[in-house]
Amino acid sequence: MKIKYELRKNEKNTSARLGYLYTNYGRVETPMFMPVGTQATIKTLSPEEVKECGSGVVLANTYHLHLRPGEDIVSKAGGLHKFMNYDGPILTDSGGFQVFSLAKNKKKDITEEGVHFKSHIDGKSLFLTPEKSIEIQNKLDSDIAMSFDECIPYPASYEYAKASTERTLRWAKRGKDAHKNENQSLFGIVQGGEYTDLRIMSAKETVKMNFDGYSIGGTSVGEGKDVMYKMIDDAILYLPKDKPRYLMGVGDPIDILEGVIRGVDMFDCVLPTRLARHGNAFTRSGKINIKNLKFKEDFTPIEDECDCYACKHYTKAYIRHLLTAQETFGARLLSIHNIRFLIKLTEEIREAIKNDNLLEYKEEFISKYSKKNN
Amino acid sequence: MKIKYELRKNEKNTSARLGYLYTNYGRVETPMFMPVGTQATIKTLSPEEVKECGSGVVLANTYHLHLRPGEDIVSKAGGLHKFMNYDGPILTDSGGFQVFSLAKNKKKDITEEGVHFKSHIDGKSLFLTPEKSIEIQNKLDSDIAMSFDECIPYPASYEYAKASTERTLRWAKRGKDAHKNENQSLFGIVQGGEYTDLRIMSAKETVKMNFDGYSIGGTSVGEGKDVMYKMIDDAILYLPKDKPRYLMGVGDPIDILEGVIRGVDMFDCVLPTRLARHGNAFTRSGKINIKNLKFKEDFTPIEDECDCYACKHYTKAYIRHLLTAQETFGARLLSIHNIRFLIKLTEEIREAIKNDNLLEYKEEFISKYSKKNN
Repeated sequence: MKIKYELRKNEKNTSARLGYLYTNYGRVETPMFMPVGTQATIKTLSPEEVKECGSGVVLANTYHLHLRPGEDIVSKAGGLHKFMNYDGPILTDSGGFQVFSLAKNKKKDITEEGVHFKSHIDGKSLFLTPEKSIEIQNKLDSDIAMSFDECIPYPASYEYAKASTERTLRWAKRGKDAHKNENQSLFGIVQGGEYTDLRIMSAKETVKMNFDGYSIGGTSVGEGKDVMYKMIDDAILYLPKDKPRYLMGVGDPIDILEGVIRGVDMFDCVLPTRLARHGNAFTRSGKINIKNLKFKEDFTPIEDECDCYACKHYTKAYIRHLLTAQETFGARLLSIHNIRFLIKLTEEIREAIKNDNLLEYKEEFISKYSKKNN
Repeated sequence: MKIKYELRKNEKNTSARLGYLYTNYGRVETPMFMPVGTQATIKTLSPEEVKECGSGVVLANTYHLHLRPGEDIVSKAGGLHKFMNYDGPILTDSGGFQVFSLAKNKKKDITEEGVHFKSHIDGKSLFLTPEKSIEIQNKLDSDIAMSFDECIPYPASYEYAKASTERTLRWAKRGKDAHKNENQSLFGIVQGGEYTDLRIMSAKETVKMNFDGYSIGGTSVGEGKDVMYKMIDDAILYLPKDKPRYLMGVGDPIDILEGVIRGVDMFDCVLPTRLARHGNAFTRSGKINIKNLKFKEDFTPIEDECDCYACKHYTKAYIRHLLTAQETFGARLLSIHNIRFLIKLTEEIREAIKNDNLLEYKEEFISKYSKKNN
């Protein structure tokens, strides 16, 4: 089936929305944070562990899976769910972002037809088009596919942004025409760079094509936070209320809060697992690095009040030992904690929307969280 | 409490024994295979996963934990069980083997008092004595501690082996005198190199000291299999029937079978997790490397009949993808499978002892297993 979004409640003082997403794998609640399983695995974790963190949808990356193991193998395995043993909804990105961020030497050649680039693994020449991206995602058999877009660099001239945004619209149309899978939903992506009129134009034109959901793209590319929030504000007014809105690549707790307040329903980011691999943990009072010497004899959990597996059974001293001794179980425990942290944040956000006190919640969260970070 | 061994049955046609080991953490069955958690973690796995494989006792390494994080930190954490969250019996080795195999540049200076050597981590000078080894193990608070011994290299002259074996006996006595923990059992280690009379002398003298169990040491140091089996044969006749016998560092399936047939009750080895990190899996028809191209589109489990988590939910094609893409979940799945493989082997061995058909079981196992390996 195609996903369906049910708007349950608008928060009184903000644009925040409480909703349900009905998927092939049951109903999930929004706003939500989606952990990223780039290569068909959420780094270091089992699908059961990810689910235990409260995950609804998880992501997988089209570009990475196209290169390795290849969409045909995933398809022969019976699709991504069976391949990676994830019994829940999966969203695949279009590959567009990775082409721009990972292509070897960042050299790429964008034509009307598509993008020529070289594999970051072996330098092999590759050519991705809107149709090809959809074809790959069809074979991967994710529940939600994304339209192929160009992620506009920041900063970019108005002329560049305009031409790119218009081409992304043509690509969206081509992708939609190529998409035939009734079991897979397809999202459109709003581009436009930092330019309000382009964002509005992109939103309006994308919505005209009637996608199953809409993403705000081109963020997290080096623009400041204010610019990012403006990018959301510019586009979101023009997105329909009965479809989910997805802010791509955003996982900073404060950005999630700011996004929700502006009406975003879905977020994803590699941040929780990437931080974990570097020994970092989210806490209510900011990020901490567990490798720090001061945790050597700290026999308390990462966070006393946290309900994750890591915090229920292990101390900072033990996790620090694992990290220092280069034992992968350390990154695994931190990944669980960090993913749970962001999912718990969205659970509390949903509660705050119910209670119409999201702004108070945000103020309180930030007042504690920012002490250490800023 | 001290462990107690209960001999339940001798197999009719071999020296194999079926037994119970009563420990601080309940009763476990022997013969058994003990997974190794060198640095207070069984590499890539959670304690729950290790238990799900059917583990009874697990190992941790005194030398590694002395260096990192240090026994005082483990002690302050409340001991090894609490530190690593393993709710089952733990055995610590004495550090002797690691001093000989891991000491920086293998340079060490053995005196009557103990061994001077350098850390393999930072080259720091260290001095380990029988008393110090016991003190560290006391602080780690394992359920079973091992006596500090010299692992005689292979080959070694008769004179060297004799002098070393006699010193190990004096070290065993010193360690036993230093050991006061009523909650921790202490095993003696039989040395003697490849020399029958030294093995017999070592066994007899070690047994006179009345340890809670006995280990056959100095194997797996490059001697051939026949030599290793002879080392067991030479010593085991002189070990008491009411104490457990432990063959250190042995994890090859055929060696486990040969050991059990000779009367050994306990085995440990890093093999299952080490093989996993290199992409290798045990199967009934021999070891296979999952990275092999032929598994690229193999959508069957590692072994159809295996009951482990990896085989229940994942295909060779998926695990191969994880290994190729350098995702740690691949080594984790293989570690689970390999540990389960050896534990399942000991379960079947126990069944064969009950049915007095261990030799038939061994023949059948080897006839399948050796096809690929030899």
